[in-house]
Amino acid sequence: MRHVILATVLMASPAWADIGIVEKQSFTLEDFQTRGGAVIPEMTLGFETYGTLNEARDNAVLITHHFSGNSHAAGRYAEDDAAPGYWDAIIGPGKPIDTDRWFVVSADTPVNLNANDPNVITTGPASINPDTGRPWGMDFPILTIGDFVDSQLGLMEQLGIERWHAVMGPSMGGLQAQEWAARYPDRLTRVAPVIAAGWADAWLTAWLEVWAAPIRLDPNWQGGAYYDGAPPLDGLAQSLSIVTLHANSEDWADTTFGRTWADEAQDPGASWDGDFAVTRTLADGGAERAAMADANHFLYLVRANQQFVAGHPDEGVEQGLRDIDVPVLMIHSPTDLVFTADAVQRTARIIGEDGTPVELVALSGARGHLDGIANIAEAGDAIRDFLER
Amino acid sequence: MRHVILATVLMASPAWADIGIVEKQSFTLEDFQTRGGAVIPEMTLGFETYGTLNEARDNAVLITHHFSGNSHAAGRYAEDDAAPGYWDAIIGPGKPIDTDRWFVVSADTPVNLNANDPNVITTGPASINPDTGRPWGMDFPILTIGDFVDSQLGLMEQLGIERWHAVMGPSMGGLQAQEWAARYPDRLTRVAPVIAAGWADAWLTAWLEVWAAPIRLDPNWQGGAYYDGAPPLDGLAQSLSIVTLHANSEDWADTTFGRTWADEAQDPGASWDGDFAVTRTLADGGAERAAMADANHFLYLVRANQQFVAGHPDEGVEQGLRDIDVPVLMIHSPTDLVFTADAVQRTARIIGEDGTPVELVALSGARGHLDGIANIAEAGDAIRDFLER
Repeated sequence: MRHVILATVLMASPAWADIGIVEKQSFTLEDFQTRGGAVIPEMTLGFETYGTLNEARDNAVLITHHFSGNSHAAGRYAEDDAAPGYWDAIIGPGKPIDTDRWFVVSADTPVNLNANDPNVITTGPASINPDTGRPWGMDFPILTIGDFVDSQLGLMEQLGIERWHAVMGPSMGGLQAQEWAARYPDRLTRVAPVIAAGWADAWLTAWLEVWAAPIRLDPNWQGGAYYDGAPPLDGLAQSLSIVTLHANSEDWADTTFGRTWADEAQDPGASWDGDFAVTRTLADGGAERAAMADANHFLYLVRANQQFVAGHPDEGVEQGLRDIDVPVLMIHSPTDLVFTADAVQRTARIIGEDGTPVELVALSGARGHLDGIANIAEAGDAIRDFLER
Repeated sequence: MRHVILATVLMASPAWADIGIVEKQSFTLEDFQTRGGAVIPEMTLGFETYGTLNEARDNAVLITHHFSGNSHAAGRYAEDDAAPGYWDAIIGPGKPIDTDRWFVVSADTPVNLNANDPNVITTGPASINPDTGRPWGMDFPILTIGDFVDSQLGLMEQLGIERWHAVMGPSMGGLQAQEWAARYPDRLTRVAPVIAAGWADAWLTAWLEVWAAPIRLDPNWQGGAYYDGAPPLDGLAQSLSIVTLHANSEDWADTTFGRTWADEAQDPGASWDGDFAVTRTLADGGAERAAMADANHFLYLVRANQQFVAGHPDEGVEQGLRDIDVPVLMIHSPTDLVFTADAVQRTARIIGEDGTPVELVALSGARGHLDGIANIAEAGDAIRDFLER
């Protein structure tokens, strides 16, 4: 008996390893046609891969990133990086997205938020418009989630991959995953949208505008033409702090901060210099993140998300979801305020109405939307099974 | 049988009438001492009353108003007013707060949001500081919900009322109601906080800062010293549109707007001039409300709410709630994002732990926080019973 128990314990302990050092690469698409009918002469984007593409070229898994993320989904650039890629908990040798089996591909989106991060390679309003030799600013074409997917289609062709074994990603990455399945059903065999719904409803559209508004109020924004002067960092910092709060939960805020003041000696009831720990921390975090981000890119991301309807927007919000015929794994957080349980559940219902297999997994964490990143390991078995099915 | 049914129908049909024309009055407190230790030489505030104070002076019900409200709780100032006071559905002859029985009193708070509304009488940063002859601006003392209650205590004394039959109000009004019960237990016989919790937790504190931030980003704000120039209307409008959204619900947004564009001819995917109906409507509503409001007053209200702990903040968040010994009726909305079901339920639990009778009523509407105003009639019977018990 003793031996059996010991064996079980050994088997249950995960035989996985970290993915190690990874490297950002880049690819370029010439004359990129946007869904809106514009042409971008040169679109250069970063990407990362983990694992090895097999000879049949049929073991590739595409990971699509969230609003404030980039293609750094796993691993580290250097041994002493503070943190690995955002889904490192589930990507690596022996992990649920097992890089011993799957060739994982992840690309930076166009108009990526962190245009000033040296590890992000993107094309957007902060890039040089070859026609003028100056930054595009708000003259850059308005993009859609469909355009992000089309840029990944370009990468797919360059890599010589015909069909993804799976497409999956959190939040805005989940929108891209659904867009893949609805629009290019022959180019993937399964899809896993995480903390994401099938379209931007009026509620989400309005909240995204709340995110964007501080940038436009910052006098440095200048209608987006700030590249010769000081960028609108105060507005951008506030926008980023709203995103952090909105993606989180009451439980997180109360447990982490309670009613503590930012500075014990500064009563927020006695002076406007006083502040609460929760608001000071959010403000400081926003300011820190703003240094790497571009305000116009933020606005372009908001507009891309607001426009989102999976598949064929002209045919209503449901048609694209009905077009999804590959097996679907949806992972969501019941305390999510961005993509609410209601929105995710109605998406799953519509996809499944015509018999498409849909598995809906609820995370049990208390971090709201962020559970789709911070707590994704909880869905590890469901992801592993889904990929191997 | 037929007769019985008919009689039931007749009895069930409410025998109530509208309250008719009401009038704003005002009262003044000299040398008002704030909880923070400041003195405001002259505090003039508006109030309204409905019904008649009886000879025993023991039938007075105090109604305390919400963040963007004022003392206009019922009736109309003129026959052709677009709408009556905010709780007109439950205040009037024969209504749940029956003005044939109860003498209803409602006062404008200090630092009232709508300082520019001719029907609001308040004292705050937009008022003249008698020491300088100029608007106080951000030199006005930072106030608390406790100060609002103390201003109502001043009115109570001027009216010759020893004890309120009840204190009740929605949202920030519910905070004031709890403050009354926790701090002045001998001055009321029952309390009914509506869509409100017993303290501002870190989550609410952070969201209130999201409400306030647009004002500070508006270059016209000028650190609050805008009274000689153009007020920060863009920031204030954005702040007000966030309040509207936050107080509402996904169901409301989706049912009302869907994915409709603001202008059929302006595709938000084709041009930055395009917009969605939901965001345009929120922006227009914010701009309209900003005309009556004062940006500094908004900031003072936010800080008052952020500081809120019922009763005795220095003794922790629970002590004041334990001090409440009068019967409590709490009415809340399960879809409320401002004062969440979690926050309301833990408040009710703490109040009731020492045996204080607490009745918790959940509204069934789909308007989120706003159900406490728009849908309050649903709790009419509970309110009527509570007042007559």
